[in-house]
Amino acid sequence: MRTVVNDAFWNRYKELVRTRMIPYQWKVLNDDIDIKIEKERNDASIPSEKSHAIENFKIAAGRAKGDHYGWVFQDSDVYKWLEAAAYTLKNHPDEELKKITDEVVELIGEAQEKSGYLNTYFTIMEPDHKYKRLGESHELYCAGHFIEAAVAYHEATAACGAGAGDDAAAEGCGGAGAGGGAAKTSRALEIAIKLANHIDASFGPEEGKIHGMDGHEEVEIGLMRLYHLTGEERYMKLAEYFLLQRGQDPDFFRRQFREDTGKEAIGGLYHAPLTYFQIHAPLLEQDTAEGHAVRLVYMCTALADVAASTGNEEMAKVCRRIWRNIVDKRMYITGGIGSTVNGESFTLDYDLPNDTMYCETCASIGLIFFARQMLRIEAKSEYADVMERALYNTALAGMALDGRHFFYVNPLEVVPEKSRKDPTKSHVKIVRPDWLGCACCPPNLARLISSVEDYVYSEVGRDILVNLFIKSSMTRDYGDGEVKVEIDADYPKNGKVTVRVENKTSGAVRIGIRIPGWAEKASGKVCTGGSEANGCAEGKACSDGHVTDVDCRVKTEDGFWYVEAGVGETSIELELDMTPQRWYANPLVSEDVDKVAVARGPQVFCAEGVDNGENLHLLSLPSDAELTCSWDEELLGGVNVIEAEGVRDSDGEANETAGVRDSDGEEKESAGAETCNEMQNTSGEAACGAGGLYRKRKATAEKPVKIKMIPYYAWANRGPNEMRVWLREKE
Amino acid sequence: MRTVVNDAFWNRYKELVRTRMIPYQWKVLNDDIDIKIEKERNDASIPSEKSHAIENFKIAAGRAKGDHYGWVFQDSDVYKWLEAAAYTLKNHPDEELKKITDEVVELIGEAQEKSGYLNTYFTIMEPDHKYKRLGESHELYCAGHFIEAAVAYHEATAACGAGAGDDAAAEGCGGAGAGGGAAKTSRALEIAIKLANHIDASFGPEEGKIHGMDGHEEVEIGLMRLYHLTGEERYMKLAEYFLLQRGQDPDFFRRQFREDTGKEAIGGLYHAPLTYFQIHAPLLEQDTAEGHAVRLVYMCTALADVAASTGNEEMAKVCRRIWRNIVDKRMYITGGIGSTVNGESFTLDYDLPNDTMYCETCASIGLIFFARQMLRIEAKSEYADVMERALYNTALAGMALDGRHFFYVNPLEVVPEKSRKDPTKSHVKIVRPDWLGCACCPPNLARLISSVEDYVYSEVGRDILVNLFIKSSMTRDYGDGEVKVEIDADYPKNGKVTVRVENKTSGAVRIGIRIPGWAEKASGKVCTGGSEANGCAEGKACSDGHVTDVDCRVKTEDGFWYVEAGVGETSIELELDMTPQRWYANPLVSEDVDKVAVARGPQVFCAEGVDNGENLHLLSLPSDAELTCSWDEELLGGVNVIEAEGVRDSDGEANETAGVRDSDGEEKESAGAETCNEMQNTSGEAACGAGGLYRKRKATAEKPVKIKMIPYYAWANRGPNEMRVWLREKE
Repeated sequence: MRTVVNDAFWNRYKELVRTRMIPYQWKVLNDDIDIKIEKERNDASIPSEKSHAIENFKIAAGRAKGDHYGWVFQDSDVYKWLEAAAYTLKNHPDEELKKITDEVVELIGEAQEKSGYLNTYFTIMEPDHKYKRLGESHELYCAGHFIEAAVAYHEATAACGAGAGDDAAAEGCGGAGAGGGAAKTSRALEIAIKLANHIDASFGPEEGKIHGMDGHEEVEIGLMRLYHLTGEERYMKLAEYFLLQRGQDPDFFRRQFREDTGKEAIGGLYHAPLTYFQIHAPLLEQDTAEGHAVRLVYMCTALADVAASTGNEEMAKVCRRIWRNIVDKRMYITGGIGSTVNGESFTLDYDLPNDTMYCETCASIGLIFFARQMLRIEAKSEYADVMERALYNTALAGMALDGRHFFYVNPLEVVPEKSRKDPTKSHVKIVRPDWLGCACCPPNLARLISSVEDYVYSEVGRDILVNLFIKSSMTRDYGDGEVKVEIDADYPKNGKVTVRVENKTSGAVRIGIRIPGWAEKASGKVCTGGSEANGCAEGKACSDGHVTDVDCRVKTEDGFWYVEAGVGETSIELELDMTPQRWYANPLVSEDVDKVAVARGPQVFCAEGVDNGENLHLLSLPSDAELTCSWDEELLGGVNVIEAEGVRDSDGEANETAGVRDSDGEEKESAGAETCNEMQNTSGEAACGAGGLYRKRKATAEKPVKIKMIPYYAWANRGPNEMRVWLREKE
Repeated sequence: MRTVVNDAFWNRYKELVRTRMIPYQWKVLNDDIDIKIEKERNDASIPSEKSHAIENFKIAAGRAKGDHYGWVFQDSDVYKWLEAAAYTLKNHPDEELKKITDEVVELIGEAQEKSGYLNTYFTIMEPDHKYKRLGESHELYCAGHFIEAAVAYHEATAACGAGAGDDAAAEGCGGAGAGGGAAKTSRALEIAIKLANHIDASFGPEEGKIHGMDGHEEVEIGLMRLYHLTGEERYMKLAEYFLLQRGQDPDFFRRQFREDTGKEAIGGLYHAPLTYFQIHAPLLEQDTAEGHAVRLVYMCTALADVAASTGNEEMAKVCRRIWRNIVDKRMYITGGIGSTVNGESFTLDYDLPNDTMYCETCASIGLIFFARQMLRIEAKSEYADVMERALYNTALAGMALDGRHFFYVNPLEVVPEKSRKDPTKSHVKIVRPDWLGCACCPPNLARLISSVEDYVYSEVGRDILVNLFIKSSMTRDYGDGEVKVEIDADYPKNGKVTVRVENKTSGAVRIGIRIPGWAEKASGKVCTGGSEANGCAEGKACSDGHVTDVDCRVKTEDGFWYVEAGVGETSIELELDMTPQRWYANPLVSEDVDKVAVARGPQVFCAEGVDNGENLHLLSLPSDAELTCSWDEELLGGVNVIEAEGVRDSDGEANETAGVRDSDGEEKESAGAETCNEMQNTSGEAACGAGGLYRKRKATAEKPVKIKMIPYYAWANRGPNEMRVWLREKE
C-alpha cells in the first residue's frame, strides 16, 4: 500500500514540518538556537536549560567530553526527529537533509556500545546500572523509538528506494505480507537489529535473562515494526513477552529500585502507583485505561498490533475492552486523554475536568496509533472516528500555526491568570512555548504529520478502507494487478468527497468508505465506467448514520459503506452534511452538565477571548440559537468560523469599581465597605446590586452578543487569552 | 471583660473539647494511642508514623535519647494543646489535668536552653543552625505558639485565679488597659519571657542582630499577647519590627538557605514564590491577600492588633485593604480561604474552585482571629459577620461530631472516587482522619472552641459590642461599678435573642448589637426597668439590614444596633428571621455560575450523598422551589434540616449497562459498541439515548426528588459519601 497525500489542509502542515519544524528542531537538538525552553509545569527539578540531545550522543560516542544533560529519555527526541525526517525524505528527497540524517545515524552508531546496548545516559553516567532501574530508566523506551526511526529511515532511504512509500504495518516492503523483501540492510537498520538482538538476549522468560520490562511502553511498538520489516518472528515474540509480563510481578520496578545502588534518574517513581505503569494486573486481565495516558495507549498500540498480526482473539478482546473504556468514559470531546497532571494519568470514569486535565499531545497521538491498529483487527468505523477526532483537534493543537511553538498540555478551558497564579494549573500553558524541558511532543507530532498518509487507508482482509478524507492516491499491488484509489476532497473545509477506484486486477475489490459517526446526513452516489449513465446509483445516508436506501452495489456495515469495485473504473461520491452541530456530554460528566460544545464535521470549536472578550464563563448559547458557519480565508491561515447570537451575563464590574482602592487607598475602600458589601447589605439591590462576593439576588442582567468560535486546533495563535470549548447553554 | 458561656450549641462543643479532644490529643502527642495518622496529601516526604511531639521535648530536655521526629514545627502541637487546656482549666478547674499541664510546662522549661532559645528540632538535630534557615525553620512560629500558650496558662492558673476569665487582648488581668496586674510570674510565663527576651536580643534593626523574621507569621501574635499581659512595650515593638520587616529584603530567606550549611528542614521552600511568605512587597504596600493563607491571616491578626493597640492608622488601612480583598474576592461562602493546595495559598480574585481548593481549618481560624482584631479597630458588623461565617461553617467542619476526627482541608464539593483516584484531589479527604501528619488544625480548633467566649463581646472605646449570639454572661468593671451583659439565645437553632444589661455604674453605656448581614428581616424591642411598661420601645429591622423605624433609644451604625443602657436594667429583644435563604456568587466566580447555595442564618447548608443519592451534580433546585426547615433532634446531634422539591436529571445508567462487560467479557461489549455508541450512531435516540460519552441530544429526562440539606459543619459524619454546597439552579 503506497499512499501519496496531496491535500490542501495537510500539505500546509506537511510543508510546515518539512520546511520549518524539522530544521527548527535540528537546531534545538544541537543547542544552536536562542529560544526559551519552558518547564512543562512548576517543578524545580525539570531540566530546561537546553536540549543537549545531540551533545549527549557525541559524549557517548567519545567525540566530546562532558556529562549527560536532560531527561533520562533525552535520546528519544533525536530518534523521533530522525523518524520524522525519514518520512519527509520519502516524499521529498533532499540531499542536504539526507546528509545530516546519515550523519546522525552514524553518530548513533558510534554511541552504541559493542554489545549492542544503546543509551547515552547510562553509557555516560551510570554504565554499571544498565537495565537495573527499568521503572524510570526509559532504556527500552528509547530503544523502541530508535528502532521505529531506523525502520522508517531504512524504508525511506534504502529498502524501497527514495520516494516509494510503504505501509510496513500492513504490508512488507513492496511485497505481500510481513517479512516481504528488505533488500539491503542500511546502517540504521544494522544498528537497530544489533540493539534489538541485545535486548532479546537480555530479556525474556529464560533463566539468566531479566524477567521484566520497561516502565514506559514503546519498545514493543518498535519491535513489531522491526518484525513487519524483517519477518523475524522473535522480535514479535519479544514484544509479546514484554506486553504479557506487565502485571505478572508487580513489585519488579520497586524491587529493582531497592536493590540497585545507582542514583535516581527521574525521582519519585518508587512511590508511583502500580497503575501508573499498567502493572496493577496482568495485562490480559486489565479492563480499564489506567495510569500514565501515553504509556497506556502505547501499550495498547503494540497489543493490538500483535493481536492483528497473529489473530490472537484474547488480546483483541483486551484491546476492545480498554478501547471501550477510553472512548465511552475517559476521553475528552477533543480526543484528549489523561484527566490529571499527577502522573499525566487517567483517573476514573466520567472524570473529565476541563481546566486541570492533562490531555498531552503525545497521548492523543498514541490514541491515533492505537486506533490505526484496531482498524487492522476489524473494520469498525468508530476507530477511524476517534482517530480523526484526536488528529483534527488535540494532536494538531499541539503545534502553533507557525510550526515553531508547541503545547504539551491541551486544555478545554483556559483563563490565563489562573495558569499564572494557581500552581495547580501551572501545566496549563496559555501560549505554546518555543520548546519544552520534556520535549516528547513536538517530534512526535512531526513524525505523525509527516506520515499522515499511513492513516488514510487501511486493509482488513481484502477490503480497502477509506478512513480519513484526505486528498490522496493509494496504490495496492495484488500480484494480478494494481488497485489505485484516489480521494478528492477539500476537507474539512467542506464535506464533498469523491473516491475514484481504478481496478486493474482480475476481480472485484471492496472499498469501505467510512460514514463518520458525527454525520447527521450523508448522501452517496456510485458510478462505474467513468460516466453516470453506466450503472450509476444513488444512496442516501440516513439518520442512523449508515448509507441505506441504496439499490446498486452498496452495502453498509459497522459504519463503513462498502462499494464493490469491479475491474475498471468506479467513482464514488459522498456528501457529508457539515452543518455545525451541538454536542452534549453524558450527564455523568459533572463538568459538562448544562453545557454544550459546538463542532462541525470532525472539528470541535472553541470560543477565544480575543473574539469574545474576557470572562467567557459569562457567555451562554441559547438552545435555539442558530449556528452559522463561514469560511474566513484571512483568519488563522484560513478557517471556518461559527457564529451565533448568544448572551453575556452581567459581570458586575460596573458596580464593582466602588470597591476598588484609589490612589490614596482610603476613600473608595470605605465606600466599598459601607455601601456595596452585599453580605452586609441584605437587599439594597439598587445601590449595591453587583458588589460583594455573595448576594441574595441572582445577577440577571444579560445582553445579546455575537459568539464567535474557531476550530480548537487553531486556538492560542493570537497571544495569551481565554479559551473555552464547553459553553453554557440556556433554554 | 470576663465572659462565661452557657450555650446549648457551644456547651456541647466545649465539653467535647474538654472531655474528649484534650485527653485524646494528649495521648496522640505521647504516641499512646492506636490510631491511623494520615498524610494531608499524597506526598512520600510527609512524616506520618507517629506524633513524637512530647518525646521530642524529653530528648531536648535530656530526659531521653533519640532523634527528633516529625515536622520541624512539631513543638507547636504541644503548645496549642497546652493553650486549649489552659482555657478549659479557666472554666473547669481540674486537678488531674492541671498536674499534667504543670508537668508539660516543666518539661518545656527543661527543653529550653540556658540562653532562652527554645525549639526541640534545632536543639536536638541542628544546634549550630539556629535562626539560620528562617524561611523553613518555624523557630519563631513555635515560639509564638508557646508564648500564646504561656500567657493563656498564666491567666488561667496564676494571674487571676482559677475560674476567672480574662480577655487579655482588650484588657489586662482584672485591671483596666494593657499591663494591668499580673500578680506573680508563673513558671510558664517565666519561660515565655526568657524566650521572648532571647528573640528580642537576636532580632531587630540594631547592628549585630538578625535583620529578618520567620517564614511563618505567628510570633507577632504571641508577642502582642505578652505585651498585653505584661505591658512591656518592647514586645510590641518587636512584633512591629517583624511585621514591617516583611518585604524589605525579599532575598532574605533564599540568602539564608544559600549560606547555611545545615540540612533542609522541610524542603522545596527555596523555590517558593515570595508571595508564599508575604514578602513580595513591604507589608505596608501590600494590597491583596497573597500566598499561604494561614500565614497571611496570622500576619493580619498581628498587624490589626498593633494597629488597634497603637492607633496606627496606616497599619489599619493595610488591614482594611487586605480584608476587603479576602472578603470581597477570595473567600468561600463557608468562610474558607486558600484556593489552591499548592502552597496552601490564595490565588487570584474570584478564583474559588469548589473541589480542588484548600480551605484549611487553620486558615478560617486565623480569619476569625483577624476579624476579632478588626473589631478592636472599628465597630463594623461585617467583621463579626465573617467571624461568624468562618466559625459556624469551616472551623466547626474541621472536627467530627465525636471530637476525635479532623479535617485539614474543607471542600465545598466532594466525590469520593475522585479523591481516591485523582492525585490532584488527594488532599481532599472524604472522611475526617484520626489525626494528620501535619497536625496544626486539631489543637488550633481546640484552643478556639475552648476560648469561644473571647469572641462574643468586644469593646470599641466605651461601647460594648455583642458580636455573636451565644448564650453567655459578661461583666465589665468600669471602676465606678460593673456592667453585666447577659445574652439569652438558642442560636442558631432559632433567631430569638435577648440581651439583658445590668448597669451598676454611675452613667449610661452603649450596647451595640450586631444585625447580621444575612438577616432579611429583624425586629427589636427595648425595655428598661425590668418591665415593658417602663419606657419600652419597639424597633423594626428593615430590608437594608439595619434597625430603623425606632423611636426610643435606638440607633444603628455600621451594622450595629446601639442601645443606650442607663443605670439599672435594660432588656433588649431581637428577633432575627431565620428563613432559609438562597445565595448567589458574584458572576465573576466562574465555578458558581448557574448555581445556588442555601443558608439559614449563619449556617451554610450542603447536600450529602447519604440523603440524596450519588451524582449530586444531577440534582437541580428549581428557582421557585420552597425551602422548608425543620429541626431533627436525632440527626447528627440535632440539626436543622432544609428540604425542597428538586429534580434529578437522568444519569443514563439504565442504558449504560449495555456497554458493561459481563463475565465472559464479550457479549455485552460488542452489544455496547454496536448499538450504544452515540459517536457512531447519529440519532438512534430510542435505542441508544443514554449510551456513549458525547451525543447530539441533550438528556432531558428528569424526575422530581426531595432534596435534603444539612448544615455544612456536620457533613462527613455518616461515612464516605458525596457532598455539595453549590447546587445547580433551574429556572
